[in-house]
Parts: sequence; C-alpha cells; structure tokens
Amino acid sequence: MTTRLTIVPGGITAPRGFRAAGLHCGIKANGKADLALLACAGPATAAGVFTVNLAQAAPVTVSKAHLQITGGQARAVVTNSGCANACTGPQGLADAREMTALTAAALGCADADVLVASTGVIGVNLKMAALRSGIPAAAAALGTDGGGAAAEAIMTTDPFPKSAAVEVATDGGTFRVGGMAKGSGMIEPRMATMLGYLTTDAVVSPERLQRVLTEACRYTFNAITVDGEPSTNDCTFALASGASGVVIDDATEAALFDGFRAVARELALGIVRGGEGATKLVAITASDAASEADAWTAARAIANSLLVKTAIHGADPNWGRLVAAAGRSGAAFVLDRARVRIGSLVLFADGRPFDELAPHAAAYLQGTDLDIEVSLGTGGGQQATVWTCDLSKMYVQINAEYRT
Amino acid sequence: MTTRLTIVPGGITAPRGFRAAGLHCGIKANGKADLALLACAGPATAAGVFTVNLAQAAPVTVSKAHLQITGGQARAVVTNSGCANACTGPQGLADAREMTALTAAALGCADADVLVASTGVIGVNLKMAALRSGIPAAAAALGTDGGGAAAEAIMTTDPFPKSAAVEVATDGGTFRVGGMAKGSGMIEPRMATMLGYLTTDAVVSPERLQRVLTEACRYTFNAITVDGEPSTNDCTFALASGASGVVIDDATEAALFDGFRAVARELALGIVRGGEGATKLVAITASDAASEADAWTAARAIANSLLVKTAIHGADPNWGRLVAAAGRSGAAFVLDRARVRIGSLVLFADGRPFDELAPHAAAYLQGTDLDIEVSLGTGGGQQATVWTCDLSKMYVQINAEYRT
Repeated sequence: MTTRLTIVPGGITAPRGFRAAGLHCGIKANGKADLALLACAGPATAAGVFTVNLAQAAPVTVSKAHLQITGGQARAVVTNSGCANACTGPQGLADAREMTALTAAALGCADADVLVASTGVIGVNLKMAALRSGIPAAAAALGTDGGGAAAEAIMTTDPFPKSAAVEVATDGGTFRVGGMAKGSGMIEPRMATMLGYLTTDAVVSPERLQRVLTEACRYTFNAITVDGEPSTNDCTFALASGASGVVIDDATEAALFDGFRAVARELALGIVRGGEGATKLVAITASDAASEADAWTAARAIANSLLVKTAIHGADPNWGRLVAAAGRSGAAFVLDRARVRIGSLVLFADGRPFDELAPHAAAYLQGTDLDIEVSLGTGGGQQATVWTCDLSKMYVQINAEYRT
Repeated sequence: MTTRLTIVPGGITAPRGFRAAGLHCGIKANGKADLALLACAGPATAAGVFTVNLAQAAPVTVSKAHLQITGGQARAVVTNSGCANACTGPQGLADAREMTALTAAALGCADADVLVASTGVIGVNLKMAALRSGIPAAAAALGTDGGGAAAEAIMTTDPFPKSAAVEVATDGGTFRVGGMAKGSGMIEPRMATMLGYLTTDAVVSPERLQRVLTEACRYTFNAITVDGEPSTNDCTFALASGASGVVIDDATEAALFDGFRAVARELALGIVRGGEGATKLVAITASDAASEADAWTAARAIANSLLVKTAIHGADPNWGRLVAAAGRSGAAFVLDRARVRIGSLVLFADGRPFDELAPHAAAYLQGTDLDIEVSLGTGGGQQATVWTCDLSKMYVQINAEYRT
C-alpha cells in the first residue's frame, strides 16, 4: 500500500458531499461572524472526542448524547462563537438542544442528527433570538465553497482562521480530508481538543472513524498547549460523507490516519501559532525518557513553564529553566546525563554548560519557528513532542481585559 | 497548656544565640549585597527540607549530606545570591563544598557543621575569588543585629526583604522563633520551599525539629505559588540554639509549631506579595472537596491558572475561569453543586450565574489582598488554601529580560 498526500484548498468543504456557511447572526457585539454551519448531503458517519474538563459545557453534553443516540451518524454540525454556553445550568442545556432542533428543521433531519458546539465567554446565556433567525439563514447560505466562511465564524480571539485539506491517493482510490479549528486561549486539549472539525469523503464505519480520529488527535491537537488550560468546551468532530466511494478497511485505515494527522497537525500548529499573544511557535521534544508517558509529562511541563515561555519570548537562551522544568516534572531525570539542544546548538551536556554558544542560541531564538530538545538522560530512549508558544505581555493584556 | 505569640523585631537574630551578617562580596554585578551568613554561638540542632526537583543544585546536595553526617547539627548557614550553582557539574559540587570549608575555617568548626545555599542564575559557576575574601569578611561582620542585613543579602528579584520573628510564651517558659526567606520567581515549593531560614532559642531534639519544620512548611511555604515552578535550589533550614533554656517536649511541641507556622506564614505570604510582577496577594480556597488531596489539587490548579491570574490582574470577576480550572484539575467536581465566592459575593451557585453581582465583585478585585473560594460541590467537606499572586506584564518583562 502506497499513500500520497497532496495539499488542496477548500478546508472542510474540500471533500465531496459537504457544504458549509458562516455569518453574523447577532451574538458578537462587534458584528463579526459568529455562526457556522457544516452540513453533509446525506447521513455521514460521525465521531467525536470531547473535553475531560468536569465543568463540561451544555453543547458538549448534547453532542455526546446525539452521537450515542445515532450510533455514530450525523447530518450537520452547528457552531456559535462569542458565547461558550458553559456553566449555564438547565437553561444552557435547553438552548443547546434548541440549536440542534433549529438546524434539524432547516435541513429536514432529526434533532439527533445534528451536533452542536459553542465557544466564547463562560457563564453567559445564549442569545436565542439571534440563533432563531441566524440558523435558517445559515442553512440557506450553505455552499460547497463555504469552508472559509465557516472557519472565520468559529473564531474568538484567534488572529487568523485555521483551515486545511489534503487529497489522499492510495492503491484503493483517492479520497480527501478537510478540516478547520479555532483557538486561541484556554488551550491544552488533554484527550480532546479545542473546537476542531475534520471531514472526509471516504466510506468509513463509525468505530473505525472514532479510532482514527482519537489516534490522529493524540499527536496533533492533544500535543499542543497555549496556556495549559483544558477548556470546558473542547471537542473535535469527524464526519465522513462516503462520497468518494473509497472504502476504508484494515488495509487503507493507515492512509485515512495519515490524512487526518496531516490536516489535524496543520490546524493544531495554527492554533499555537495564533495563540493569545504568541509571537513564536516552539516544538519542545523530551527525549531519552524512561517511558513514553514520562516523555509526554516532561515535554508538557517544559511547554507550560512560564519561565521557559517568557525566556523564549525574550530570545534568552536560559537553558537552566528547561532543565529545572524537566527536573520538577515528575518524569525520571538524570541530571549528569541530561542534555539541552536549542536549534542545532547543544548548550548543556554531561552535567556541564557550554555557555560560549549562548550568543548563537540567542540569535536562533530571534526566529519565529523554534525547535528545542531536552534529553532526560535516562537511557530509556522514549520521546514526545509538544508544540507551545511564547508568553508575551499581549497574553496578559488580552486576558486581563477579556470581558471588561 | 496556653500559648501566646507576640511579634518581635530582629528576624533570624531575634532568638538568643544567633548572629548574622550580609554584604556585597562581588557576585552581583550591580554592587548589591550577595552574601549572607547565619551563625550560632554553639552547636545548634538543625533540620532542613529540600526541593523535590530532580535537577538538584550543588548546595542542596552538600547541605543534605552535612545534615546526615552530623545527625542534625549545625553551626552556620552560608548563602550567596546572584548565582544558583545549579547544573554546574563536578565544579559546582567542589565550589559548594569550598563555601562550607571557608565558613568553617572562619568560625572554627568542622566543614560538616556548615550548611550552604545558593540562589540566582542556573548554569553559571560561582565566582570563588569573591567568596574567598567575602566569607571571612562576613564572619568578621557577624552581629546579633544582623538579621536585616542577611535578609537583604539573599534577595534576587525580590522587591523587598522578608523577615519575621515572634516570642512564644508558654507555661513552660518563653522562647523565640525568627526567620527570613527570599522569592520571587520559580516559586511553587512543593514539599520543600524556596530559601527559608527559621531560628529558635528553644531546646529541641533533631527529630522533633525536623518534624515541626516539615509540618510548619506544609501550610506555609508549601501552600504558596508565584508561577508553579518548583526550583532547583529550594530549601528551608531550621536552627535551634537552645539559648532560652526552654525544652521542647511532647507538651510544648505544639507551641513550637505555632511559632514556626506564624513566622513561616508571614515569610511565605511576603514571598507571594513580592512575587515577580505581583500586584495582588490572593488566597484561593478549594472547599467541599472529596478529600484533602483533592482540595490541594484543585486549589493549586486554580492558583496556577494563567487565565485566573490574568483576570485577577485585570480586576475581572471572570468566575467561569475559576470553574474551568477546578473542573480540569483532576479533583472530583460536581458542576451542579459547585459555588464560587469572590470576597463576600457568591457569583455562581447551584449551576447558575449571579452576574448582577459582577460590578460589586469587580470593585472588590481592585483591592490588593483578595479572598476567593471555589466549592467543588462533592459533599466531602475537605478544604485547602493556596496563596498566589496575579500575573502582570511586569512578570513577562522580568523573565523575558532576566539575563539579557
């Protein structure tokens, strides 16, 4: 089995069988787009991964229930931005259900065939009047070129929309995978992700789609962090229209995974690059860990360290902070055999610093796409990579003034 | 047994039997004090708690070894600021040992009777020439009024020195407890603490002193966070001179604990108040947790949440972030019974918001000494309090420019 991936335009509407729309219905006060609709021509196979936060938002509860009822089918996903519909009690649940009912009425399907997501401020009720007129309008505006408008409509503090698609050529035929996502604060999607949407025109069973989605998230959405905050509303949906006629079986599952991973990775890195106040995208690799779990633990600890993130912001090759974060992460760590690499420069190895390289490392850190590795020195040889961003004054400003 | 605590001046030299000094020996380029010496007139009972960071600094290794060799005795603690002597390999260990040897020579005791601590930049070797002339000078400058100078000499980015002392009157006699500490970044001293020093003139066995120190740290130094970063150099020492003649036994141990806790709490809150870029001291209580461990987990997660810390900085009563942080903390959490209190205002209870109180909460958050409680709603009734500070642009600036 050979697989070839080619980047294509169109985002979530790149695969056949999908239409999308995005518009302003009146939730955001600034007039920006705040309602996105993704619809499939017929019943699509559907899968989802959801936040592990126990303060789960109403739309998460409703979407999980709908996937259970249908056994993994969906016709549409309706999403609003500007209001998370989280911590809103019984009213919030009723509102999330009404969003699916409004969508079902506009598209002529059952309520349970509609998945729902919300993003924005926590603890505020949805403006249902806006959605009652907005959802029919979005249904009327659905188009096979609507991927871009939908990606814009799910944004909150995101500086740019995140959209991607690939064509996957296999021996068994050619299918496409598309996707969109939004960030950009409260981001460390553990076992889930911030709002993410993947579409494909391959023919896939619900169980297989769920398995491929979960595995693709593991190394993409679940391997990023902006501020170490798994949100109340994280979810990623995958919809398969089957319109390409290419059937995904045991032989081609790897190709679907490759497609999902490529699109999800592009979206996930976009979320970090567009993280609140971010000026740099940083790949943090923890290597030579005693176990894969330890590698993830250490990489996450380093990637979430305020001292690491501020040093990177200041282009300061302060590798001591990388070592300190690894040492307190809880992962096994052998100081005398640990090693720190910034770009191609090894600044610490065998228990001693190479500070003469510091000026070169400082020059490298002026860049916007950075690669840092901390070897934990255990001899275990396991590794993991987490993508993070720097911590700037702008992050503080955005989040000190978010509601005021 | 009745116990009465009275605040007294003098810091670590308030208890009888202790002298201290602080001066500039040449480690800091800016001419500020960088060497502190604390000495006891005779052999003091000694105890220590140390960082759990696996990237343990050389002075931590040496101090632990010395406490083992002596079985819990010490004559002096020598401390430099401006250089952490961490990640410095065999040279760092030799340098830390030489610091104790220089002090022992100046005071006429064994090397093992001297404890050593360092704080400052990681990965840089100590300027031993400065210490070779500085340590004898500090020994010559020792005085019973030297507590203030010593507290100044251990500072790094601390905006003010942290020093405190109490007199403890018990039925069995009166003794004193003094202390000093420094912050102010890389602060979340788990099972240990940033540099802290407690002295007492009570007569205490090494085992008892260790037990009281460990327990006192639990609710003071170990219950604070500035940036969630347990450092490579955290340690707290306790020295008991016995000069008061008051013997601490099973009956008076609680009085010693009260004294230690009072002084350690004052120092710990001082560290948070003087945290890098901090403008507010915030007590975060997680209540109605299923277990005490859960209460600590939730309180720490909230206290380290960037979104919580930035909202507090902006005086934004964004209680949704408190709920989100509690919900993703790993502690048991029941959203429908959770409750959020900011000052005396309940903003969320029984699954619904009370946003009409938000303007009053915003006014309260303009203050500098804040009290916030999140009830986890489990019915378990356990609670814990962690002290944290807000996250400001100044924190980013301090840490983006620390070495450059």
